[in-house]
Amino acid sequence: MKNNRSSSARGTLYLVPNTLGKTPENNTIPEYVLNIIRRLDVLIVENIQTASRYLQWVGDTIPDYEIDFLLLNKKTPVHEIASFLDPLKQGRDAGLLSEAGCPVIADPGSELVKMAHAQDIHVSPLVGPSSILLALMGSGFNGQEFAFHGYLPIDRNKRRQALLKLEQKARNSAQTQIFMEAPHRNDAIVKNIIAHCRDDTRFCTATNLTLPDERIISQPVRHWKQGSIPAIHKEPTIFLLSS
Amino acid sequence: MKNNRSSSARGTLYLVPNTLGKTPENNTIPEYVLNIIRRLDVLIVENIQTASRYLQWVGDTIPDYEIDFLLLNKKTPVHEIASFLDPLKQGRDAGLLSEAGCPVIADPGSELVKMAHAQDIHVSPLVGPSSILLALMGSGFNGQEFAFHGYLPIDRNKRRQALLKLEQKARNSAQTQIFMEAPHRNDAIVKNIIAHCRDDTRFCTATNLTLPDERIISQPVRHWKQGSIPAIHKEPTIFLLSS
Repeated sequence: MKNNRSSSARGTLYLVPNTLGKTPENNTIPEYVLNIIRRLDVLIVENIQTASRYLQWVGDTIPDYEIDFLLLNKKTPVHEIASFLDPLKQGRDAGLLSEAGCPVIADPGSELVKMAHAQDIHVSPLVGPSSILLALMGSGFNGQEFAFHGYLPIDRNKRRQALLKLEQKARNSAQTQIFMEAPHRNDAIVKNIIAHCRDDTRFCTATNLTLPDERIISQPVRHWKQGSIPAIHKEPTIFLLSS
Repeated sequence: MKNNRSSSARGTLYLVPNTLGKTPENNTIPEYVLNIIRRLDVLIVENIQTASRYLQWVGDTIPDYEIDFLLLNKKTPVHEIASFLDPLKQGRDAGLLSEAGCPVIADPGSELVKMAHAQDIHVSPLVGPSSILLALMGSGFNGQEFAFHGYLPIDRNKRRQALLKLEQKARNSAQTQIFMEAPHRNDAIVKNIIAHCRDDTRFCTATNLTLPDERIISQPVRHWKQGSIPAIHKEPTIFLLSS
């Protein structure tokens, strides 16, 4: 959005959450946030096509052809990220749009936010769904102390070692351990936990959060051993371990 | 809310966020969440008076005198927490209402959620503001790996030791370190960090998030040493350290 402030004034970098998936009604994005999106004509996104689909869902936005889309992903070189701040220096507001959930959280973008601070550009994080946070709330595990570790290693042996290290940390401290997996490895990780973790370690899977088939299973490993493995193959899931 | 399901059906335990403070307009709670609050007649709260004030702000809720308020705080005995699930077993939905931000996150409630899972009661975490998450987004620090530690120790020496341990962890790993302080100790902790942390450690204060005077300062300690200490005395602040 073009600012009416004096030409020396800088724009605001809004950190804009996305939904965690399509639902019959908007259950996760405050109307206030939608109204900010509707006014932005500089959008920093991971993928223009999916960003455009989000804008369609939001509705009443500035038309795509009038929006300056800037591409930010893991491969974007640092000097290009730095140039994304140019419109903000010129007084325009910009949005860093997440593909799903909250930008920066288990997602790219922190480099851009860091540069914005270094350039004295105002950063405004907006409220939306975070699967990590919702999973922690819904797990019944300690929310006073927790750690998020991102993805486990791909190598099978290293993955199992990482898992057992997290279990040990969960058992030796009050800190809840949170991690993710590539969705096609969900079943494998559940089997690993059932096979290798101790009976009284607590294990939670939080799947498709905020979607119609959301489900949170939170039980000691002993219970998991008795039940059947839940059908979470390829479904976005957060995993949590606790003592 | 009374369910129309069969008498054997159980209610849902909704985990209901609160705002982080009063703002001219609702900028943090999705309308969907407000609509759920409006239908609940069992509310598990830390303080009835502040919960009642929140209901007034939400508007169109069931009148206070028709709501069953159940008190949950650090002192509530375990058997009493267990009894809070009785209405849910009878098919009524209930809300665990936070005093500020998201329930369970740096707040009581995890014991209740744990018991709900043990009793096969459906738990539904709802979207709202978390100062911890917003601070992490806004800091420009690593959001792929992070740990939240709650409050630092009160004892001055132990606090300093805990702080230096967090700095070391931030420097030796990619994990962003997040913590809080009793607001009247905010200035002291900032002074401690400036005095004791290394020049290139990155330090962020995120104050009054989502409120009109929200401010996020994120700079290497070297910059903090050159500037003046920000006025955050007694203002809700999240602290973050990063390499």
